[in-house]
Amino acid sequence: MHGGTLRGVFAPTLTPVDEDLRIDVARWIEHSRTLLANGCDGLCPFGTTSEATSFSVDERIDALEQLTAAGVPAAKLMPGTGCSALTDTVRLTAHAVGLGCGGVLMLPPFYYKGVSDEGIYRSIAEVIERVGDDRLRVYLYHIPPQAVVCFSLDLIERLVTDYPGTVVGIKDSSGDWNNLHGILTRFPGFGTFTGSEAFLLQTLRLGGAGSINAVANVIAPIQQRLFADWEGPEAEQFQAAINQVRPIYDGYSAISALKAVVAHYRNDPAWARVRPPLVELDAAAAQAVVDRFAKLPVAAERAI
Amino acid sequence: MHGGTLRGVFAPTLTPVDEDLRIDVARWIEHSRTLLANGCDGLCPFGTTSEATSFSVDERIDALEQLTAAGVPAAKLMPGTGCSALTDTVRLTAHAVGLGCGGVLMLPPFYYKGVSDEGIYRSIAEVIERVGDDRLRVYLYHIPPQAVVCFSLDLIERLVTDYPGTVVGIKDSSGDWNNLHGILTRFPGFGTFTGSEAFLLQTLRLGGAGSINAVANVIAPIQQRLFADWEGPEAEQFQAAINQVRPIYDGYSAISALKAVVAHYRNDPAWARVRPPLVELDAAAAQAVVDRFAKLPVAAERAI
Repeated sequence: MHGGTLRGVFAPTLTPVDEDLRIDVARWIEHSRTLLANGCDGLCPFGTTSEATSFSVDERIDALEQLTAAGVPAAKLMPGTGCSALTDTVRLTAHAVGLGCGGVLMLPPFYYKGVSDEGIYRSIAEVIERVGDDRLRVYLYHIPPQAVVCFSLDLIERLVTDYPGTVVGIKDSSGDWNNLHGILTRFPGFGTFTGSEAFLLQTLRLGGAGSINAVANVIAPIQQRLFADWEGPEAEQFQAAINQVRPIYDGYSAISALKAVVAHYRNDPAWARVRPPLVELDAAAAQAVVDRFAKLPVAAERAI
Repeated sequence: MHGGTLRGVFAPTLTPVDEDLRIDVARWIEHSRTLLANGCDGLCPFGTTSEATSFSVDERIDALEQLTAAGVPAAKLMPGTGCSALTDTVRLTAHAVGLGCGGVLMLPPFYYKGVSDEGIYRSIAEVIERVGDDRLRVYLYHIPPQAVVCFSLDLIERLVTDYPGTVVGIKDSSGDWNNLHGILTRFPGFGTFTGSEAFLLQTLRLGGAGSINAVANVIAPIQQRLFADWEGPEAEQFQAAINQVRPIYDGYSAISALKAVVAHYRNDPAWARVRPPLVELDAAAAQAVVDRFAKLPVAAERAI
């Protein structure tokens, strides 16, 4: 099975915004470069952690062009392109392919709930047909907690069968090991990324492609050590260290909390801004999250 | 409390699509005119029933311009304008206001689940501030079954208090009488529309503004009789007749089923098309729905 060319530790890049809530492209490019220099094999601009769906298609296209124009290699990028509207997904996907992106991360259309596998199949198939480019590599984005609309295993199989070499992987952000295990065992060689950092070691042991996690925005280096040496004696230790991060922001928005951590270490309060409907952490909460993070051993080898 | 100028029976207009899945504007305009001539006081182009979120901002703007250019009075329109992306909602809302629409129907940003009331408040407030036009009349769109993200009663109160004369109403598509009752009693004079046709009489008895229901695409005339004479002796009978429609498509997509009914009565199979992720009814299902509808007394005084 064709699993695409993308492997390793990927960050769904946090998207800084300026005081008018526009994408702060300069800070964004700098953060992208920092991550690629510090543990990330690639980036997913405009994933869930990136507040992707809070930005218009034009805003996303413009930013992505500036990112590649600044020298970030498109081959290492897997931008999110899935929208509610078929035509928006087509436009973003065609644009990413045109830039030479290594893949795209495709949400199913997420407004209508309870739609059939047939309907989701037609959505993805229609995008692939309209983009009509052999270079397209689609990674399906399964994230039931936010999208609610899902990629079932049978639907994945149908898409892979009908579009081999194009539908090459998946990001499973279900948080459900049984589902991820089902994908890894049913589709060997598929480009399967875990959306939950806690499953990285297990994913690699079963032949998965890597991880795409929010926490990579701050702790990509230790994730990279695990990815590079998952068969080594320290693998369990690396995984345990990775697992310590998420509890520090339990009860808060992961995105707002991670932006607070970045703002702290960059000594740049602007980094804490989010676009509505998200809300930045208040000062006390931000301090609490930062303090908890600073106490973790992994804070010493952070990405930022 | 300012309840806006829109009252009565509204249809979230079905959106016909051509064989390339583009909006079939000619059929759409004709359907809009038919509804306004047959029971509808106004229309909600690009509501949930309209497959709104399956079309791009540009497609929606272009179609709405053609609709008003064709002579459909903007004052009778309450187009849907709420998107996931703040900037998309701003663009659609400003455009609708510019056309002179009587109001806009605003979904909350619907990708991120579990967001706070504060975050939704900021989203709506930011749209209002950015549009910055005294003519803007916002009807909040509460539809938990699809959007999942909701307008709580406390959030409604905060928005109405801070933006009196701008936030003038709501469409409650929760399907929950307790919630609708709570809105009607807590916000007297507010422009409250029921999204469930079964609650039209109760809504009017408690001072609500009217209804916005999928079924108005086919049975607006009897809804209009109820709206016009809700204190009359036949009110309960009208309501009972209205209630008979929804069960005919139980188990099917309401949108696909209603398009099948329109396709039948217009003798125009093109009307049955839907854009993915929706799927049209198969021939047997369409026939079953049409047959059940035809047996209802209300079929004799349908809109189409």
